[in-house]
Amino acid sequence: MKQSPVRWMWMTLLVLATAASAAGPGAEGEAGHGETEFVIGLFSLVLLMVAAKIGGELFERVRQPAVLGELVVGMALSGLGLAGLGFVAGIRESPGLHVAAEIGVILLLFEVGLESHLGELLAVGWSALLVAVLGVVTPVGLGYAVSAYFLAEEPWYVHLFVGSTLAATSVGITARVLKDLKKLDTKEARIILGAAVVDDVLGLIILAVVSGIVTSIAHGEGDGGVGGGAILLIVLKAVAFLVGAIFIGRAVHINAVRAGTHFRVPGVPLVIALSFCFSLAAAAGLVGLAPIVGAFAAGLVLEPSDYEVYRQRGEMPIEDLIRPLAAVLTPIFFVMMGLRVDLAAFTQGDVLAFAAVVTLAAIIGKQICSLAVLEKGVHRVVIGVGMIPRGEVGLIFTGIGAKLMVDGQPVFSSDTVSAMVVMVMVTTLVTPPILKVLLSKES
Amino acid sequence: MKQSPVRWMWMTLLVLATAASAAGPGAEGEAGHGETEFVIGLFSLVLLMVAAKIGGELFERVRQPAVLGELVVGMALSGLGLAGLGFVAGIRESPGLHVAAEIGVILLLFEVGLESHLGELLAVGWSALLVAVLGVVTPVGLGYAVSAYFLAEEPWYVHLFVGSTLAATSVGITARVLKDLKKLDTKEARIILGAAVVDDVLGLIILAVVSGIVTSIAHGEGDGGVGGGAILLIVLKAVAFLVGAIFIGRAVHINAVRAGTHFRVPGVPLVIALSFCFSLAAAAGLVGLAPIVGAFAAGLVLEPSDYEVYRQRGEMPIEDLIRPLAAVLTPIFFVMMGLRVDLAAFTQGDVLAFAAVVTLAAIIGKQICSLAVLEKGVHRVVIGVGMIPRGEVGLIFTGIGAKLMVDGQPVFSSDTVSAMVVMVMVTTLVTPPILKVLLSKES
Repeated sequence: MKQSPVRWMWMTLLVLATAASAAGPGAEGEAGHGETEFVIGLFSLVLLMVAAKIGGELFERVRQPAVLGELVVGMALSGLGLAGLGFVAGIRESPGLHVAAEIGVILLLFEVGLESHLGELLAVGWSALLVAVLGVVTPVGLGYAVSAYFLAEEPWYVHLFVGSTLAATSVGITARVLKDLKKLDTKEARIILGAAVVDDVLGLIILAVVSGIVTSIAHGEGDGGVGGGAILLIVLKAVAFLVGAIFIGRAVHINAVRAGTHFRVPGVPLVIALSFCFSLAAAAGLVGLAPIVGAFAAGLVLEPSDYEVYRQRGEMPIEDLIRPLAAVLTPIFFVMMGLRVDLAAFTQGDVLAFAAVVTLAAIIGKQICSLAVLEKGVHRVVIGVGMIPRGEVGLIFTGIGAKLMVDGQPVFSSDTVSAMVVMVMVTTLVTPPILKVLLSKES
Repeated sequence: MKQSPVRWMWMTLLVLATAASAAGPGAEGEAGHGETEFVIGLFSLVLLMVAAKIGGELFERVRQPAVLGELVVGMALSGLGLAGLGFVAGIRESPGLHVAAEIGVILLLFEVGLESHLGELLAVGWSALLVAVLGVVTPVGLGYAVSAYFLAEEPWYVHLFVGSTLAATSVGITARVLKDLKKLDTKEARIILGAAVVDDVLGLIILAVVSGIVTSIAHGEGDGGVGGGAILLIVLKAVAFLVGAIFIGRAVHINAVRAGTHFRVPGVPLVIALSFCFSLAAAAGLVGLAPIVGAFAAGLVLEPSDYEVYRQRGEMPIEDLIRPLAAVLTPIFFVMMGLRVDLAAFTQGDVLAFAAVVTLAAIIGKQICSLAVLEKGVHRVVIGVGMIPRGEVGLIFTGIGAKLMVDGQPVFSSDTVSAMVVMVMVTTLVTPPILKVLLSKES
């Protein structure tokens, strides 16, 4: 009997969801080793791994990027949660799965960094810087205007916060699409990646400034209050981190690789590469940058040829060691991102109208970027589109907006939060297909 | 300037410990993305990965198994914790690192299962069963006697609990040593692994019965009260699980592999293998067995040749996909196990005396096992020694003994807990070197 593979996929998903569901409440008394939570986590991990591959496959079959399928599978799971399946909330809040997802996106940026070369990135440095600045200033302005129109009764700092949420590009989605299409080696990819690094730094400065302003208003200290010194400190820390990662990081890494050759126990090259990647990611977090910026820097600094000596001793090439790990963990990040979408927000008309216009502002705001490209022969529209997705950084801003209180009211009402989530989702969902069409036409 | 590699190792450990330490309390206000915990976790993960490799390497250099070095590095970290370094407690209690360690030991048993063959294991089935039964009955008896002598004022069920804690073998250590020495393909290894699976089942029955007795005493229901029905149920569940894993599991796995060949997205074989392993591990947990039993069954059922079709399409062999993952995560389990040792217990004389005699009982108790081997030409002493380590199962028993209360008193006093921890540690530490000497002599 030959079954259709697609039908088989949906059946598998159903069985796994049932298993995860069954493992939920009833299992408490059964697990003899007192590891109920761990057992549920294992089932959920299997569910996410398999669901990600099935979602990716279904979208590949209709010639869409796999990452989109992973997001949609996550949203479908989120829908099952709304429909009353309790295990979905368990997955969404599982610390273990969050760690797996975070390490997945760190490994993705590490891989992207491995495939990028520092020299080539510096060659597009000025374009990247200009693209990033324009791509931050315009959406902040547009976002402020849209918020001032739709949320007229709210104070000015709410509008500023809405604008700021539109600022930072989430490079994860674009990097993944460029990687899937094997376009990381293009000038466009380098400008986008470089701009995204600068973007993250600018986004953090804006976050620090805006939340500083709101905090000082909440404390009744008036409307100003964030010194130029604080802003300068953030900029200096970020620049020092990147320069340090490149120069000190390279020296440390080369020495670790050399020392590792004295080791006889197995697994040394992978431990060195992962340790370097995780250390720089953690260091980025320590100075207040996103960990993925550190992971990207680590990939940039590390050259696969550094590990040639291990390869001659019969170890696998370093890319082959990291690829399987990333292929399992990275999709979990995108499924978890889909899971964060609250589908109930789609049912409110006024929220949807605000969301639609904010989303348009977010998309148009980044198209100005393409004007800033200095190089000739670059597909400018690709740059503008590649900067669209807001993803995790937008969600982080939204989360902070929902937490910051002024006079007992959060800066972002629950409707604003829903609209921002829609914006993050739509910008994330539209980019892969457009990028794919643009890049296929080009080649 | 050429530095000694050993000196370099210690310097690296020191720097990493300082980094983890620095990331601890002071970092709270710095992490801009609100991910302090995650940042500390990343640093700790790097520390454990590197420490494990350095510990393993130092022990390999003095011709001891690497796993022993990983345990000792964990104990050294535990010592640093006693010396006041706060980050050690953070590592010991980090849920993320516990998950990494648990998945590490699951992958180890999965790999061990992959290298074992069902037919060969069944061929030594009767020996394994006899070895397991003798290896459980004798230590329980000896443990009861030792406890009755040293803890004369305690009631009889405390002695029974002490004896039960000596029952179950921790196959992780022995499997790792046999794997490191490339001896998994011997008759001795198959008897030990088979006996360890039966052992785990017997250990769980004893745990269920003994804690059932203690609970009914605590409820004032008299000294008996655990029905034969409850015991039968546990046995039936365990047998049903193993038979189900082998027959249903094999059919499910073959179908998953066949369905996966229709997929075009990368990473499918690894996702299928890991999903199968994690599902069986979780299923084992659901029926009340240790998850590692399920992982071992998964490895037993899965044959690398099942993935031949993926290999022909250019994917890596399944063992090459799993090995790097296991090489990073498995050592974390053993470092974390070393970290659980409370070095302060070593300073109390009476605790040490009790611990020493209990440890002797644990070691001698398992030597009777070798008498139960039916096959000819088997190195019987290897079987007895291979069954010595108590590891995680002993710690689980100890933990339950410390939690179970009768008349407001725990079954295990804090001194008894310390003695049991010493027993677990010594049995775990002595096995690898003895096994190594025995097996090197043999070949």
